[in-house]
Amino acid sequence: MSSLERIAYADGETALTGWLARPAGVPRAAVAVYPTFMNTTPGVEAKARALAAQGYLAFVADFYGPDSPHDFDSANAAMIKLRADPAAMRRRLRATLTKLDELAPGIPQAAIGFCLGGMAVLELARDGADLVLVASFHGLLQSPLPAAQPIKPRILVCHGDVDFLVPRSHVMAFWEEMDGVKADWHFHSYAGVDHGFTNPLTPAGAPNPSYNASADRQSWAALLGLLDELLSQA
Amino acid sequence: MSSLERIAYADGETALTGWLARPAGVPRAAVAVYPTFMNTTPGVEAKARALAAQGYLAFVADFYGPDSPHDFDSANAAMIKLRADPAAMRRRLRATLTKLDELAPGIPQAAIGFCLGGMAVLELARDGADLVLVASFHGLLQSPLPAAQPIKPRILVCHGDVDFLVPRSHVMAFWEEMDGVKADWHFHSYAGVDHGFTNPLTPAGAPNPSYNASADRQSWAALLGLLDELLSQA
Repeated sequence: MSSLERIAYADGETALTGWLARPAGVPRAAVAVYPTFMNTTPGVEAKARALAAQGYLAFVADFYGPDSPHDFDSANAAMIKLRADPAAMRRRLRATLTKLDELAPGIPQAAIGFCLGGMAVLELARDGADLVLVASFHGLLQSPLPAAQPIKPRILVCHGDVDFLVPRSHVMAFWEEMDGVKADWHFHSYAGVDHGFTNPLTPAGAPNPSYNASADRQSWAALLGLLDELLSQA
Repeated sequence: MSSLERIAYADGETALTGWLARPAGVPRAAVAVYPTFMNTTPGVEAKARALAAQGYLAFVADFYGPDSPHDFDSANAAMIKLRADPAAMRRRLRATLTKLDELAPGIPQAAIGFCLGGMAVLELARDGADLVLVASFHGLLQSPLPAAQPIKPRILVCHGDVDFLVPRSHVMAFWEEMDGVKADWHFHSYAGVDHGFTNPLTPAGAPNPSYNASADRQSWAALLGLLDELLSQA
């Protein structure tokens, strides 16, 4: 199913399956890649491979474990269940970082995510995760547990201005929430761009009408540029 | 005074002085560089040279002509005078593009600007200028003549979120104005970053407390990346 390396890990009793993309040489950093609510997809795996090509160890996270969904409706149900317990969701997300630490100890970690994964990396930041950068692509910006402590990672949010899930009121509220804890964020908003702009295919494999090649290209370049800057200073 | 090439041009009866930075080979495009309200400065000229190093012909515009100011107060007075007649200001800005067309006919044009220059390039976009891209760095977003016709260039705005001249209400109003004419904008906002973040020196030559190396670096990379994309497609 995947050209990536299958890695078993766990969150307590729940068995999880991650997918690893290794760079050619010694990795510059380890990057957790949180997928969309559909869990891993060819689009997300392509991003992991693109990170590996840039010298990063990239590890695609598993949100759900054995119940991993295979269609839109079951994915939506699984996401609703995951989000129903925000603290448990954070433990699930943390399990990926713990595994990544085991796979590549002693190197800097970052986390990126798409859609639900974009929310996930912001949740990790709010939870105090020790990361150099979190980057959210068309991620949900609201949290059931708003930031209440200093945020360690730099934050990059790449957002489609007409994302049907994230209106401008959420953007404003996010800035205010992040300012409340003096987070260091860069927020990129793209006119006329909708949710899912990084993936040329829909979950069903059909062309994605919301795909935006320019926003995809420029947001990816922003990620690589900022990551490079932060690791050069580390 | 400048390591750049002095170029005389004019806006009607007003003699202007631009400063040209030439690339090593055939230029990929011609880029008008609109300075801050201080008119040309070493910081702006460094940006022009950086564009030339990337293969662009870069031409630093003159806002004021023979009365070019040499200190903060005279610059402020000159800016107020320039902005007092919005249509005349647009003619002044257009004169630079006309000269650039003469210097390098038949190649794509773009325009970038800083502070007042950021406002200037957005004014050119609103005025219907035939550019591939305008990029504003800590520019003023409001216009006395809001956009009322389709905007040809892609727009990149790189904005310090705590710019004391540009509150969030201006950001929202700008998005709404641009959406009204279906402009294609990318808006980057940087937390905790103030006006003037691209220039390490103040107009007086002292270190600029608002300089932000990360925002400067990342916004410049965003400009080069988007310009490269647009010219690759042209």
